[in-house]
Amino acid sequence: MKSHIAVTGATGFLGRHVIKCLLDAGIDTVATARTRSATAGGCRFVSMDIANPPLDAFERLGSPEVLIHLAWDGLPNYRSRHHFEQELPSQYHFLKSLIEAGLPKLVVAGTCFEYGLQSGALSEQMPTNPCTAYGFAKDALRRQLEYLTAEHSTQLVWTRLFYLWGEGQAPGSLYARLSVAAQRGEPLFKMSGGEQLRDYLPVTEAARHLVNLAVRPCAFSLINLCSGRPISVRRLVECWIDEHGWTIRPQLGCYPYPDYEPMAFWGDAARLDQTVSI
Amino acid sequence: MKSHIAVTGATGFLGRHVIKCLLDAGIDTVATARTRSATAGGCRFVSMDIANPPLDAFERLGSPEVLIHLAWDGLPNYRSRHHFEQELPSQYHFLKSLIEAGLPKLVVAGTCFEYGLQSGALSEQMPTNPCTAYGFAKDALRRQLEYLTAEHSTQLVWTRLFYLWGEGQAPGSLYARLSVAAQRGEPLFKMSGGEQLRDYLPVTEAARHLVNLAVRPCAFSLINLCSGRPISVRRLVECWIDEHGWTIRPQLGCYPYPDYEPMAFWGDAARLDQTVSI
Repeated sequence: MKSHIAVTGATGFLGRHVIKCLLDAGIDTVATARTRSATAGGCRFVSMDIANPPLDAFERLGSPEVLIHLAWDGLPNYRSRHHFEQELPSQYHFLKSLIEAGLPKLVVAGTCFEYGLQSGALSEQMPTNPCTAYGFAKDALRRQLEYLTAEHSTQLVWTRLFYLWGEGQAPGSLYARLSVAAQRGEPLFKMSGGEQLRDYLPVTEAARHLVNLAVRPCAFSLINLCSGRPISVRRLVECWIDEHGWTIRPQLGCYPYPDYEPMAFWGDAARLDQTVSI
Repeated sequence: MKSHIAVTGATGFLGRHVIKCLLDAGIDTVATARTRSATAGGCRFVSMDIANPPLDAFERLGSPEVLIHLAWDGLPNYRSRHHFEQELPSQYHFLKSLIEAGLPKLVVAGTCFEYGLQSGALSEQMPTNPCTAYGFAKDALRRQLEYLTAEHSTQLVWTRLFYLWGEGQAPGSLYARLSVAAQRGEPLFKMSGGEQLRDYLPVTEAARHLVNLAVRPCAFSLINLCSGRPISVRRLVECWIDEHGWTIRPQLGCYPYPDYEPMAFWGDAARLDQTVSI
């Protein structure tokens, strides 16, 4: 396996795990982000601002065979116009320059928020109907890249990430908040009713899937990155507590359910299951 | 009725009919387009390029109470990236400047192409799934304006136009081609199989509906502008021939059906029927 792969958003939560996975697999890797962070060590690092990329961005990234594109600014505020006013045009412009420069394959991190308020098992064939500015902007970027790559030789693999959890996650995330509260010795963990069904994947598995999709032939241009198994947020929290042997207990019903998410949705993993694991 | 209304795309096919309808109703009207044309006479005209608007665009348009926004470049090439690479950002930027300047009401011409390859009676509640760059860009502009107007006091009325026909239409349109061929005395009119079901509205009726939506309170922010009645293209051509007493006959099956349109689709006119006519 001698692929040369570049990764944007390399210093983010998922990016750090993807870089580790690439290096573990002995793949020639270039990491890029606005500023180097300590965790992106062990591979070449190129500093680049996607909103103001250099004209020779493709060459600066070492003319990669594959780009794993994870960068996206402005989260976790899903409702901000930033997502389509700044992020969508910047990202399209940046990726277009790489596609026009001859990038052979592009693997992008999309989101389950592209589906919008649809319940149950969500499959890639369903029409999207995003209800947040974030989901809309990701969905729009995907459509624009589909039109663009149809006119070029770049292979596009658009992945839809469901929920991730793991070490190094942003402090506001469920797992990070629970972890901090438990280690502080707090007796109760304030949370929502916890009945909502979600699809949670360990970040290490998501990273492995992304690397797999980058280095192997992929029959799909659109694929859910998910567990395929719904789990209630209450059960999820209980599992995390059990695994770590924490003594904290969930205090249910402290927060309302978000109005921009359905009560029960998870990914249909049939396509992902058909891809060969590394 | 003392509204002050501005109209973009005022020199286009639909725009000329809208201007006439506004003037007939005694409404104070400002027409705008890149360059004045003979047919936009009888009302104030402001020359403006939406892709490069002046900073005081709202004031130049006379600080209107309503904008009827019809301008859209790059048709009839539905597949060009122009629609989302140039038209979408230009139009959003232009309309955002008017909304931020205090425009009270915005009536926009969208398209049935936002629905994509969905068959049968199409209602406004259905999720969109455009399959052309044109349909995608219009759908994206609508979503962006929905997010934007939610933060401002501007009332948005997004209309989805189905097929129009009438005098002054572009030479490539079905009605214009038939009219030219008939008046030349040609015996046969080459056309598709003609079995496809569509929704055709006389342009004069569409103009009347737009003016109605502009000057009256409207309960809907999204509304089909359509007849609500499916008609085969073959029958439509036969009707036009009968009405004019032409002797030309349809020669069916000369062209394939377009692959970006369903075989049979028309608008659900329930919402339009609920609006009060002028």
